[in-house]
Amino acid sequence: MNKRKDLNNYHALFAFSRETQTLKGIESMLHWDQDTHMPPNSIEIRSKQNALLDTIIHKKQTSKVFGSLLKKLINLETGKILATSLSPEKKVAIKEWHRTYVKLIRLPNTFVKDFAALTSEAKHAWGIARQENNFLKFKPFLERIVVMCQKKAELLKYNKHPYDALLDEYEPGWTTQEIEQLFLSIKEPLMNLLALAAKKPKVNDDFLFGSFNKDKQLGLSHLLLKKMGYDLNCGRLDLTIHPFTINFHPTDVRLATAIHPLSLMSNIFATIHEAGHGIYELGLPKEQFGSPLCEAISSGVHESQSRLWETQLGQCLPFWHYFFPLLKKEFPRALNKVTLKKFLAAINKVTPGPIRIEADEVSYNLHIILRFEIEKALIEGTLLVKDLPEVWNSKMKEYLNVVVKNNVEGCLQDIHWSMGAFGYFPTYALGNLYAAQFFETFKKQHPNWEKEVASGNLIPIKQWLHKNIYQYGKLYSSQALIKKITGSKLTTSYFIEHLYARYQNKDRTLVQ
Amino acid sequence: MNKRKDLNNYHALFAFSRETQTLKGIESMLHWDQDTHMPPNSIEIRSKQNALLDTIIHKKQTSKVFGSLLKKLINLETGKILATSLSPEKKVAIKEWHRTYVKLIRLPNTFVKDFAALTSEAKHAWGIARQENNFLKFKPFLERIVVMCQKKAELLKYNKHPYDALLDEYEPGWTTQEIEQLFLSIKEPLMNLLALAAKKPKVNDDFLFGSFNKDKQLGLSHLLLKKMGYDLNCGRLDLTIHPFTINFHPTDVRLATAIHPLSLMSNIFATIHEAGHGIYELGLPKEQFGSPLCEAISSGVHESQSRLWETQLGQCLPFWHYFFPLLKKEFPRALNKVTLKKFLAAINKVTPGPIRIEADEVSYNLHIILRFEIEKALIEGTLLVKDLPEVWNSKMKEYLNVVVKNNVEGCLQDIHWSMGAFGYFPTYALGNLYAAQFFETFKKQHPNWEKEVASGNLIPIKQWLHKNIYQYGKLYSSQALIKKITGSKLTTSYFIEHLYARYQNKDRTLVQ
Repeated sequence: MNKRKDLNNYHALFAFSRETQTLKGIESMLHWDQDTHMPPNSIEIRSKQNALLDTIIHKKQTSKVFGSLLKKLINLETGKILATSLSPEKKVAIKEWHRTYVKLIRLPNTFVKDFAALTSEAKHAWGIARQENNFLKFKPFLERIVVMCQKKAELLKYNKHPYDALLDEYEPGWTTQEIEQLFLSIKEPLMNLLALAAKKPKVNDDFLFGSFNKDKQLGLSHLLLKKMGYDLNCGRLDLTIHPFTINFHPTDVRLATAIHPLSLMSNIFATIHEAGHGIYELGLPKEQFGSPLCEAISSGVHESQSRLWETQLGQCLPFWHYFFPLLKKEFPRALNKVTLKKFLAAINKVTPGPIRIEADEVSYNLHIILRFEIEKALIEGTLLVKDLPEVWNSKMKEYLNVVVKNNVEGCLQDIHWSMGAFGYFPTYALGNLYAAQFFETFKKQHPNWEKEVASGNLIPIKQWLHKNIYQYGKLYSSQALIKKITGSKLTTSYFIEHLYARYQNKDRTLVQ
Repeated sequence: MNKRKDLNNYHALFAFSRETQTLKGIESMLHWDQDTHMPPNSIEIRSKQNALLDTIIHKKQTSKVFGSLLKKLINLETGKILATSLSPEKKVAIKEWHRTYVKLIRLPNTFVKDFAALTSEAKHAWGIARQENNFLKFKPFLERIVVMCQKKAELLKYNKHPYDALLDEYEPGWTTQEIEQLFLSIKEPLMNLLALAAKKPKVNDDFLFGSFNKDKQLGLSHLLLKKMGYDLNCGRLDLTIHPFTINFHPTDVRLATAIHPLSLMSNIFATIHEAGHGIYELGLPKEQFGSPLCEAISSGVHESQSRLWETQLGQCLPFWHYFFPLLKKEFPRALNKVTLKKFLAAINKVTPGPIRIEADEVSYNLHIILRFEIEKALIEGTLLVKDLPEVWNSKMKEYLNVVVKNNVEGCLQDIHWSMGAFGYFPTYALGNLYAAQFFETFKKQHPNWEKEVASGNLIPIKQWLHKNIYQYGKLYSSQALIKKITGSKLTTSYFIEHLYARYQNKDRTLVQ
């Protein structure tokens, strides 16, 4: 038996990869500092620090040393495992290491550098285009980015559609066709729901806007973190402009929220959302740090974790049965005359608007579908960048019945394309679909859940997610995992039924 | 002429070294986070991040690439400059790069690793020994550290005394003999001053201790930073346990202070001290980043910058003429009945005690002399670690007339030896001597200084230091610099005269 040899080879690769992952944690640390505490004039040296670390990490990941360690375990061409004596878990890790390695070496260094240089310029140009509401200032950069993304897809290789290669960066295993079918099956029901909502009497949510003390808002964030089981010994909550979660290691995962003194709910939902991401990262098995078994499955599954807490749970009655009285205590002037029912209606108000990040649960996925259709067409070459604003605006009218006033609240609103992140948007929608299916399963397995949540005990949810998702890292693909947990593949009906129940008042958790 | 070739070679070395320096900045960033914001459970991964970066930096500094770049400019054996066409400034930089390189390659990798491993363990053991007031728990580690430091001196090579090699790490160009002579010339005058102080009536400083609001204390820190010209666009002030300054680049130099709610002055002096270090680093020429011309000269000169602000200026009348009314406004209950004269007497109280970091200006250098004599004897082998407590305590009695109650407030009080930092202590005393000589020269050149400081204008001091010290980086050695600025070599009389004037009330800046 080659068992000992296989194991030694495995551990050599693991140790090498652990170093790479440690360097990535350091790089994330620099980003964390940049977005929370860095003095303004340090931006230039910070960019140089990042670029240098990037180069070191990329060299390590594509090094001959890594390649020769890997090929002792797996055939680099065919992907056939050579270290047959290893456990199934280790084989999964090897396959995942191989998958990432192959993708990295398919991109020549010059391409990686050109892409980084272009997107750095493009991000800057995007900022100016937004400031001046001038799409033409961004257009030439986006054109070059589309060309480079097409080239990237060719370099990375794909079976059917060039977009497959880009999607695979964020949601491995999914094809463009599958995404298209999923989106097709929810598009109409979502538009119907919006039409129904438009006919209803207007919901009053004025009391959610006013003047809300910053310290009290931050205090609420900390209460929520505690209740969700986010461990401050392994993380912290800082203030920033755009809320985020960043992970260095399963013992150091940090959150940042933004507090708007005029809005009661924005910080609350941002905190719940980021903590959902955070406890996933904190729940990954740290003894596997450096291996794919200590990594989150995909962007979509990650988003499912934040959205499960934020929308499925954070907008339901039992949750606010517990938290609303506490909120009221902090902000009596704004909320004294507001009933729980009115409050719940206000935070679940459906009002389609032009901005994705402000979208309600019903509109949100339509924003994504619009972006997916557009970026797919751009990659195919069936849509030209020059026609982007027109197509954007007409789809906004068609799907959301929203008239876009200008490109700043239209096709210039998101940073993603300026960063070259084509293929990312669909994962937001997948996150919502996964979340609905996961949460429905949780509820079935915990018939008592409403009572527990209403008494402020959210830990069973975290425990369930840990048992079913966190602990495995990348052991299962998203497809395998959802089947393992829920008994069926990803099905849009969970999400649609959830929305109908909630927004057509058929949800027993909404009405008292 | 080989001018173009020389220049190209110089710039290749400079670029390589800039990368090393950038990595060092990243490493400092990790330390900053660890001492200010890091969640407690992240310590294990942080140690690994540090160790990994350390290895990468050390490999780079001792790499063949660096060596071969260097030897195009300077003869590695003889230290003779080969790139003769370069400017004097560039030649200084090359000599300094060479000096550091030679020292680094004289230490084998195994030695560096063993030393790091031993001091890591020793620091831990030192902590336990302090907790349990048990010198024996630290003794075996210190014994091994002494042996390794003796070995280090042999590896690094020296002319006369092994301690020379260790001292050179922190105060290049100085010999053990020179330090010994300096210390000999101040020892008696300092002891005389202590004896005179002991005969005087007791100074009341009770009002400096009580309850002082943390936010108000922090507000004062920020006022001081502003007045000293510390630019918050290139730095920040955080809270920590042991105050420190840390630099990543001349556009990012951060300070940390400790606020003790029961003590009025500890944060104030810590802020002034750290800001003195900070504005030195911020004043280094950033276009030289990566070269020795963008580095501070030595630990001693660095300390002179902090002590000049903290003691020479921060304990004098004109300074408090401006700041005392502001202090009074913040803490009226504690200070309402206190006159400026009484306040100044209180902050200049001379009371020898066992703890170095709490020592007054007169006692301080005696604490250092004691440590210098002891560590020199340990390295020589004329003192054994087992006899350390006894020798420490007897010297404390002899020099400071202090009876040491236990080893925690005796030979276990400083962390330095557990870190293997033999040769560092003398630089604290040198800092005080440099500071006295620099400040005396500044005063001569600015006859109006008292008036300006008394009106709250401290910027002329910063400008003078920038013009004379900051802008040059390592262009001049500490010896050359002090001669250039003050017209004479380092002379202890400036320091002694300053103390006599201040503490024997012959100082016109002290009495109103």
